[in-house]
Amino acid sequence: MDLERSPLALPFPAIPPIPGVTLRVARARYKEWDRCDLTYVELAEGTTVAGVFTRNVCCSSEVELGREQARFGKARALVVNAGNSNAFTGYRGREAVEQIMAQVAGHLGCAPSEVFVCSTGVIGVPLPKDKAREGIGAALEAPACSWKEAATTIGTTDTFAKGALAKAVVGGRTVTIAGIIKGSGMIAPDMATMLGYVFTDAAVEAHFLQFCLGKANESTFSCITVDSDTSTSDTVLAFATGKAGNAPLASFDDAGADAFAAALHDVCRQLALLVVRDGEGAQKLIEVRVTGAETDDSARRIGLAVANSPLVKTAIAGEDANWGRVVMAVGKAGEPADRDCLSIGFGGVWAAKQGLPLADYDEAPVAAHLRGREIDIEVDLGLGEGRAIVWTCDLTHGYIAINADYRS
Amino acid sequence: MDLERSPLALPFPAIPPIPGVTLRVARARYKEWDRCDLTYVELAEGTTVAGVFTRNVCCSSEVELGREQARFGKARALVVNAGNSNAFTGYRGREAVEQIMAQVAGHLGCAPSEVFVCSTGVIGVPLPKDKAREGIGAALEAPACSWKEAATTIGTTDTFAKGALAKAVVGGRTVTIAGIIKGSGMIAPDMATMLGYVFTDAAVEAHFLQFCLGKANESTFSCITVDSDTSTSDTVLAFATGKAGNAPLASFDDAGADAFAAALHDVCRQLALLVVRDGEGAQKLIEVRVTGAETDDSARRIGLAVANSPLVKTAIAGEDANWGRVVMAVGKAGEPADRDCLSIGFGGVWAAKQGLPLADYDEAPVAAHLRGREIDIEVDLGLGEGRAIVWTCDLTHGYIAINADYRS
Repeated sequence: MDLERSPLALPFPAIPPIPGVTLRVARARYKEWDRCDLTYVELAEGTTVAGVFTRNVCCSSEVELGREQARFGKARALVVNAGNSNAFTGYRGREAVEQIMAQVAGHLGCAPSEVFVCSTGVIGVPLPKDKAREGIGAALEAPACSWKEAATTIGTTDTFAKGALAKAVVGGRTVTIAGIIKGSGMIAPDMATMLGYVFTDAAVEAHFLQFCLGKANESTFSCITVDSDTSTSDTVLAFATGKAGNAPLASFDDAGADAFAAALHDVCRQLALLVVRDGEGAQKLIEVRVTGAETDDSARRIGLAVANSPLVKTAIAGEDANWGRVVMAVGKAGEPADRDCLSIGFGGVWAAKQGLPLADYDEAPVAAHLRGREIDIEVDLGLGEGRAIVWTCDLTHGYIAINADYRS
Repeated sequence: MDLERSPLALPFPAIPPIPGVTLRVARARYKEWDRCDLTYVELAEGTTVAGVFTRNVCCSSEVELGREQARFGKARALVVNAGNSNAFTGYRGREAVEQIMAQVAGHLGCAPSEVFVCSTGVIGVPLPKDKAREGIGAALEAPACSWKEAATTIGTTDTFAKGALAKAVVGGRTVTIAGIIKGSGMIAPDMATMLGYVFTDAAVEAHFLQFCLGKANESTFSCITVDSDTSTSDTVLAFATGKAGNAPLASFDDAGADAFAAALHDVCRQLALLVVRDGEGAQKLIEVRVTGAETDDSARRIGLAVANSPLVKTAIAGEDANWGRVVMAVGKAGEPADRDCLSIGFGGVWAAKQGLPLADYDEAPVAAHLRGREIDIEVDLGLGEGRAIVWTCDLTHGYIAINADYRS
């Protein structure tokens, strides 16, 4: 099926080259298609790495191995296969990943553990080793390509290429942080997977990079949802080549560490939002702002309950200021909430305060807000200081069409 | 909007009168419609009662009061209002419920706490007291009506009337257990609510009735899901009039207690399944059978994760044997699971065993099974003895049409 470009798409940003990062793409032909589907990223010696991975316990071999490799903190290459997730393929799937690691390590003269592999696409079919071998061979000889080409090649049913950029001044030097991501369109029987990669020329020690990435993840990738379904392959990796020449960042005591962490967070947030903007069938981007919860984590859970509610998502699709459904979703979240302290609003206008509909509630500005592309839902629990922002998209006929109408 | 009768509908059963239970319906005109919308059930003196209620913390006054009243274990009447859920209406909503309780208690000469009130429909609008008063007045003078009329009158966007029947022999006497239920169609901004009522002429002490209902609930009402959204008003009440003349059941040591509990469970299961059969947009009834989990509760959570997955539900809607999506849903449930012990099947045919697709998997019988109305998904965790069955329906364009395309 051909998917139309999401109406929420953003243009691909002008990302400059990042010293120490070389991008190449090739055709491995994992599926019967005429497009590049293997992305190879070569990283300078000394590159540090950090990663966050799916919590799905039925994860792929790529995720199992990547999680172990990230602990060592060193990376020389990244390979991304599109069209086959290699998930639920047992020992044969693992062999394919290990073959790729060995092939690239042999070429670069590095340890196999420094070669990261991710795959996305059909589940239950072992990644074909011969196609992978030839694809890697072609990629190693391919000319360097652009960020947009790499962002396109890691995609599967994405309707637009997704990239983000930020800069920070670290120890007097300007460092660049750039990222690309894929997700979350889908064609049956493919499983939508979020794969995100962040690259920087900053010098950052691996443990601190891991700390910053983990922290950024909490309020970005962990705060988005399209349909509440968690892929077996979700992975975000951050690579720091150190080519900017700053003194390596090891903690927040180092000059520029705050600026670096903020810029990394910014890139992660941009990437996360791009995934929601390409959510299956999405017509509207929804931001759920939760305040007054007992804790930030409680606020996040309540936000996700609202963002995952099919009844809330269909109400927004129908441009219906149905705050009753928001009340319901807050109440089912399993978090502390008091009906008589609860306030609900849309686009900055309160519809209900402290457990009662507002007598002077004017639905006209809310109706106008709901006709737009970017919708804000405000939830105030009235209990404490906990707050969170969660992003999702509406639930439309497009979602059903993508996931039910077309067969594999 | 006019909703078509669900293709999964079952005919209303021939439920005989139950001694001690009198049904009446009236027009309270809670909405602009020409139908009965107030159901009044009079119960003989000595009737015991038990209840299970929504866990949604933003519950209605009806639920708050009903939960307190059920602890006393005595009932003389039930009033069900359709068209207005009276949820999120603060003190004014509570006043309306207390007025109904007082009016009926005055008529019957009983305590207000013996009058149970439930409401379903639009949220955030206090139940109009004048309409309720006149409706109750009319109901008290109305002729007795049939089970089907009562089942129709408690409904809102239900596409068919739902009832269930079972019998048991208790202490040499045959007792009847009958139930009616409403759920879970919806018109914006109404919130689908499950209201279920079970009536028996058996004599059952309230604490034992509560035990049996709670136990039945665990594997019936708590094992169904349409869209993962929990109403603020969900209520199931069981009433035992004692008119069958058996020695009151007080524990499983009493003769016939097992038979009674089994029949009650049977009625609850029938009613729960009828709600799924009328799920918004449902075209297929899905039974998820989970075995081999560490515990029964873990099995139930895994079953609900599968049943609530939009990707699984759309795959079934598309008649696609997409077992990869089932793997994903099992993995995200947050319960113990081992990818390499996991087996997935459809309609009795295994597609994957112990973490690997079956080499000789024949999709033909599975494809035929998926073209039917009743779909079985089997999940074996391969870890322990825990098992559960969960029911849901597929996710179709009809769901979006009901919840997004039509405005309030």
